[in-house]
Amino acid sequence: MGVPRELSATAMTDAVMRGDLTCESIVQDCLDRIAEREATVGAWAFLEPERALEAARALDRSPRRGPLHGVPIGVKDIIDTADMPTEMGSPIYKGYRPRADAACVALLRTAGALILGKTVTAEFAGSFPGKTANPLDPSRTPGGSSSGSAAAVADYMVAAALGTQTGSVLRPASFCGVFGFKPSFGRYNRAGVKQAAESFDTIGLITRNLDDIRLLDSALVPNDTLASPLAKPSVIGLCRTHLWPRAEESTTIAVEDAARRLGAGGAALRDINLPPEFADLTPARECISNYERARGLAYEWHNHEALISPRLRQSIEKGFAISWDQYRSAMDLAVKWRRDIGDCFGDCDVLLGACVPGEAPQGLDDTGDPKFQELWTLLHLPTVTLPTHWGRNGLPVGIQLVGRLRSDAALLDVADWVWNTLGPTDRPAKAAMGA
Amino acid sequence: MGVPRELSATAMTDAVMRGDLTCESIVQDCLDRIAEREATVGAWAFLEPERALEAARALDRSPRRGPLHGVPIGVKDIIDTADMPTEMGSPIYKGYRPRADAACVALLRTAGALILGKTVTAEFAGSFPGKTANPLDPSRTPGGSSSGSAAAVADYMVAAALGTQTGSVLRPASFCGVFGFKPSFGRYNRAGVKQAAESFDTIGLITRNLDDIRLLDSALVPNDTLASPLAKPSVIGLCRTHLWPRAEESTTIAVEDAARRLGAGGAALRDINLPPEFADLTPARECISNYERARGLAYEWHNHEALISPRLRQSIEKGFAISWDQYRSAMDLAVKWRRDIGDCFGDCDVLLGACVPGEAPQGLDDTGDPKFQELWTLLHLPTVTLPTHWGRNGLPVGIQLVGRLRSDAALLDVADWVWNTLGPTDRPAKAAMGA
Repeated sequence: MGVPRELSATAMTDAVMRGDLTCESIVQDCLDRIAEREATVGAWAFLEPERALEAARALDRSPRRGPLHGVPIGVKDIIDTADMPTEMGSPIYKGYRPRADAACVALLRTAGALILGKTVTAEFAGSFPGKTANPLDPSRTPGGSSSGSAAAVADYMVAAALGTQTGSVLRPASFCGVFGFKPSFGRYNRAGVKQAAESFDTIGLITRNLDDIRLLDSALVPNDTLASPLAKPSVIGLCRTHLWPRAEESTTIAVEDAARRLGAGGAALRDINLPPEFADLTPARECISNYERARGLAYEWHNHEALISPRLRQSIEKGFAISWDQYRSAMDLAVKWRRDIGDCFGDCDVLLGACVPGEAPQGLDDTGDPKFQELWTLLHLPTVTLPTHWGRNGLPVGIQLVGRLRSDAALLDVADWVWNTLGPTDRPAKAAMGA
Repeated sequence: MGVPRELSATAMTDAVMRGDLTCESIVQDCLDRIAEREATVGAWAFLEPERALEAARALDRSPRRGPLHGVPIGVKDIIDTADMPTEMGSPIYKGYRPRADAACVALLRTAGALILGKTVTAEFAGSFPGKTANPLDPSRTPGGSSSGSAAAVADYMVAAALGTQTGSVLRPASFCGVFGFKPSFGRYNRAGVKQAAESFDTIGLITRNLDDIRLLDSALVPNDTLASPLAKPSVIGLCRTHLWPRAEESTTIAVEDAARRLGAGGAALRDINLPPEFADLTPARECISNYERARGLAYEWHNHEALISPRLRQSIEKGFAISWDQYRSAMDLAVKWRRDIGDCFGDCDVLLGACVPGEAPQGLDDTGDPKFQELWTLLHLPTVTLPTHWGRNGLPVGIQLVGRLRSDAALLDVADWVWNTLGPTDRPAKAAMGA
């Protein structure tokens, strides 16, 4: 067994329940890592070590609360916590302390999780970044908007984290070399989560393995009958979409290599060519996102405009300029594709495609291109990224698997088989991490 | 001109802008009415007269802020206000003061509206009622969950009010003899509104006439191109649905009389018979509502269970017992009908049907049967109720018009024509109101 912080969430709670580790020792080890690395990584918006240790000791004294007993978790700072500030990556919410936990936080706590602290978010889960750097190469972005969640999990500061994808969970997961899961729209209740685009904002998970996704999911959706993992290969659709020309070589190589090896491993591979009109979803998504974001921030806009970043201001101005008729057309298109996309799967269990254009870009000012995630988010489909590949700069490049609507368990089953087939690869850059 | 409080919102702001009335005098008149009637009606969860007058004087000193300048509005107490408590009809939120206004409140304020106070809601917009009585007959329910909003508008305490329909805006409007509008899902942004069932919760309006619905709507959706009202009759589908046997005589008479007179007035009438499977939506809606409500209240449930009413507790327990598979099936059905319902309209501009079973029932313990509103809410269609008829007890019975998805302006156009054709009727019970 390595140091406690390097365990999976599943192994952590098992060790706590067996009495091999205390929750306190796990938290202390995470805090040590944070003390060592936070100045470089900047993953945390709020963290009080003494409070975290006290909560850990309380869990150590308590009988088993649920499947996450003793597991430290990070929570993106647009998700309400009753006992910690929730600042949304914006000076407007400096020191804001909500009255209640978000529903997802309440469910994790009920399952025995320890909320270690709040992780850095881009301003209101948009594109203006916080202080976080990519732990694998601090000169590069960790991705956004769930920047701190991905960086903290990747850097072994915490076992798992909540993020939201409007936005993105999968991009920062891919840039930081960890697993990201965005379930079907509506799977995780959004009460207490700051809106970005209300018709497709989705809470997601960032972990260091697939079992931990299932573990957290079981706390958030206690009544799902998870099918047992597939022992056999799947039917997988290679779906490049109109965005393929935006992918860099590191991504095209990763996706095509994955397809080839999955085929060699026994999967039936299909080429899924979406009709050209699918490309209309890109501007429709932009329209819906700007329209909803502007209105969702009406209070902040009309009362604290000077405290909003120029980048977000521009998007809000765009949003308020969009007419209801334009928004309606865009929504009609989204609804049509939510209906039709199922047929495009044919007999495929999942679609395989690009997750990101390539490795995390240089610089901390831009969180990278969300295009490869955003249409599946708009369409409400469950998606997962697996850190299967590495680019030429030694940074990770994830692939993306897309499931059918509300078939989240089936997606995770295929993901298990895909991960077992493609195999975990060592982090070539690990030495550079200071680990 | 009557007393200021009896003016429409449109007439109020016109009078303020012309200099015929001050906002202060309007608010003072509303406050006088409240002082006289609140002990009987119990519409308000929070109201501070001196603060309201101060805000009115500030508006009187200010240049015109927007189309609602000087109009007092009531806000259902599950909708956040930064300067007033938001108690959700629950002791759990006693004294809770949000950091921000809900987006809808921010937009109304930006348009010059004066938030007079917070109106009573059923507990978390569910079915456990607050203190409000029906102003037309205080021994009867005002309906719920937007109880205080409907009662306050009907009783001339305020010009208009925000409600939410999960739940209902249209039922309390019908029971109290005023107009209720539930727009298409997504028309009014829900940031800062407490969730009940997140996949169909909809903010709505309660007013004393249709022009005021347009006025408030123009502040909430500034970029809609409202078509000019229809001068000509419409194609109207009489749609009884499987719920028709639940309607009492007062409602069947109202709806059939409306259809007859609209036909005589020149509308083309169609009988719209939905396929029998439409009835499956009733249990599906119940499943979705309980499932989402339980999860949306996860924090309250796991931290303050003793402060939740037995009625809501029962629904939360039911909700947590529903499996993901059951929820998924119900959602699949809802999505299918959201898609198919448009075809059921045929060539109709709107559907005409029952809004409520009949007059407001006796007693304050039960807010009445939501069945006639809830399926259209689940299907995201815009609906409006018009106080066209009276029952045998002298209490109002509204009819309901249902529009096509995101065709809100078209629905209001037909509603204008319907109202002009059926004509306003005097309130037979007005003398009993103490007015």
